[in-house]
Amino acid sequence: MIAKTIKETISSPGASAIRKMFEQGKILKAKYGDDKVFDFSIGNPDLDPPEEVLNAIEEAAKDRSHMIHGYMSNAGYDEARQAKADKETLEQGVKVPADCVVMSCGAAGAINSVFKTLLEEGDEVIVPSPFFVEYRNYAKNFKAKLIEVPTKADFSLDVDAIKNAFNSKTAAVLINSPNNPTGRIYPDSDIKALCDALKAFGDKTGRYPYLICDEPYRAITYDGKKVATVFDKYDYAVIVTSFAKNLSVPGERIGYVCLNPSCPEKADFIGGVIFSTRVLGYVNAPGFFQRVIAKSWNAKCDYSAYTKRRNLVKDVLDNAGLKYADPEGAFYIFAKVPDSWGDDDQGFIKVLEENMILCPAGSGFGMKGWFRICYCVDEKSIINSRDAFYKAAHTEKK
Amino acid sequence: MIAKTIKETISSPGASAIRKMFEQGKILKAKYGDDKVFDFSIGNPDLDPPEEVLNAIEEAAKDRSHMIHGYMSNAGYDEARQAKADKETLEQGVKVPADCVVMSCGAAGAINSVFKTLLEEGDEVIVPSPFFVEYRNYAKNFKAKLIEVPTKADFSLDVDAIKNAFNSKTAAVLINSPNNPTGRIYPDSDIKALCDALKAFGDKTGRYPYLICDEPYRAITYDGKKVATVFDKYDYAVIVTSFAKNLSVPGERIGYVCLNPSCPEKADFIGGVIFSTRVLGYVNAPGFFQRVIAKSWNAKCDYSAYTKRRNLVKDVLDNAGLKYADPEGAFYIFAKVPDSWGDDDQGFIKVLEENMILCPAGSGFGMKGWFRICYCVDEKSIINSRDAFYKAAHTEKK
Repeated sequence: MIAKTIKETISSPGASAIRKMFEQGKILKAKYGDDKVFDFSIGNPDLDPPEEVLNAIEEAAKDRSHMIHGYMSNAGYDEARQAKADKETLEQGVKVPADCVVMSCGAAGAINSVFKTLLEEGDEVIVPSPFFVEYRNYAKNFKAKLIEVPTKADFSLDVDAIKNAFNSKTAAVLINSPNNPTGRIYPDSDIKALCDALKAFGDKTGRYPYLICDEPYRAITYDGKKVATVFDKYDYAVIVTSFAKNLSVPGERIGYVCLNPSCPEKADFIGGVIFSTRVLGYVNAPGFFQRVIAKSWNAKCDYSAYTKRRNLVKDVLDNAGLKYADPEGAFYIFAKVPDSWGDDDQGFIKVLEENMILCPAGSGFGMKGWFRICYCVDEKSIINSRDAFYKAAHTEKK
Repeated sequence: MIAKTIKETISSPGASAIRKMFEQGKILKAKYGDDKVFDFSIGNPDLDPPEEVLNAIEEAAKDRSHMIHGYMSNAGYDEARQAKADKETLEQGVKVPADCVVMSCGAAGAINSVFKTLLEEGDEVIVPSPFFVEYRNYAKNFKAKLIEVPTKADFSLDVDAIKNAFNSKTAAVLINSPNNPTGRIYPDSDIKALCDALKAFGDKTGRYPYLICDEPYRAITYDGKKVATVFDKYDYAVIVTSFAKNLSVPGERIGYVCLNPSCPEKADFIGGVIFSTRVLGYVNAPGFFQRVIAKSWNAKCDYSAYTKRRNLVKDVLDNAGLKYADPEGAFYIFAKVPDSWGDDDQGFIKVLEENMILCPAGSGFGMKGWFRICYCVDEKSIINSRDAFYKAAHTEKK
């Protein structure tokens, strides 16, 4: 007998919407041709991985050393952990030793390992909404509650609202900057205010909620914008991330957890994440890509392609008369359904679908009345979707 | 604040013993030299992967097709699923279609995805003991109970005892043949009796417990012994396995789930496993090794090396006067502590350690008074451990 909760979840819409759309896109493309379907459903980067990464893959494949495909420590290879520690030292401006890093099965594996380490049943994780849909499922894995705290109208952090949600059950605040689905980068001053609030709450109550920063899009920013540092602001800060988006290798499941070296609970936290990596069944991050990434993590795709696409999507949306939040990073545009549709995003994405446009509804991200356009797709797809978007945007709700 | 359960677990002995030993082995070897430490702690195969696998790795690395490292369906690549379906068709003697297969992050990922699909809080999973230590942690992930049912004196299945454990909470029976830690292969007649009992219980109560067969050692058997088929015996049978042991690639985290095509709950079960693969944070089995294995799954290591090592270990144990179960498959020997130690396996493994021998205690596997020797190590290590084993076996308990 299938577990009741699973049966309900897999037969309900919502959380599985993006993946269902991804599968549906494949069927539609097979039926009507690739060029007839405008698939903006999923963050599956279409830029090729950097040459350095492809070369590192070939090099790693040639390595026939004894037991090179064997188990390593659950935390990962020493050299992979060191490379990630060096990366965080650069990015955070704080010296990070290798023992603060645990290699993971992508950012999804990283978040789950951190959640298992931190969360008791009934604990709360505060997340500014809109947010990445899967957070709900990750919290459910540990019977924790995801507390959705709306961002401001421009999708920037509402630190006061987050502060008001703090209570004795608050185990963590989970932020994602650049944000999926809005592309918003939370400015340094907001992060500072949030960190100060977390510290003040901890000083008062003795329970310091962790600040979990989900950063797979850190490298993909526009107009010279930078993602704020956290290790200089709050001891209980942890970064979870992957190379899926910046190096275009999402299918290879490689990422890591990095804890602030100043965290007073360092030994327990890292021990817990290593243990969780093991018993959640990852055992270790895939060995082959640990070796690849240890050598090529510093490579970059040409992200200017995303700037160009962002501008193309904006043009398509402007032409259709659709409003949207101008992204500062990542490769998503969060757009508003036409006024006549009110907050009926589920209804409007059906109209988009009738026009062969695949976009997930905002309600999955905790925000009705919006939808997400993922533009890590080829330019032609964006350009050719112009008329379809116009038509959809001018379809009145019946 | 670290979750209390995690804090307790990581600071307690037992479940983490094998991995701690693995880490300790690395430290001891660095200090005293590889040849001075007899590390029989972990099933990390030292046979090189077959040439076909190594070639498939190089070939996969040369593939620079567009989006080859991108997301695929959460269930895995079609060709990987088809290859595994063909493998199961061969092994089970029943035609298995590709949609009964979900690619996984090793057998550990497979078991966790199946557990999440099946288990409600408080559900029970029956496991014949001794059993692979991690099952306890996997059950705990879903707040399910592992019901340990002892095997007979020769470690064969006690089907009557398993039957007696059936109740309305029984969600699954989990077997592992060849067994870790005993090397026992459950004969076809016992599996038939177990399947009949499961079917009878389902017919009577309406709840058919799943039979989960954890089979990473299926290919590694001695004296021509064969692992029983299950798809011809019980509709609710599911195989979880990996290529870690038979192809010597445990660090690469590649395995799969395969459901009996006759299962009446097929759509829900496979839907549940795909969903669980996603939300448990695996997202998909590592893409690179899916491609490798799709091409090279039929390769074999020269398992006769394990036969030779088994005989060497038996000789070492005979010389030391230690009793053991003669393994029929896998690469573990389960040995009894000397009589004077009674059931104090924890005490005796300390004596082994004092003699530079690393072996996990039987109590971790649900069986006091025994210890496990893993012999997927080089022959010299086994031969050179002769005196150390003799000395340890002749150390009286103080």
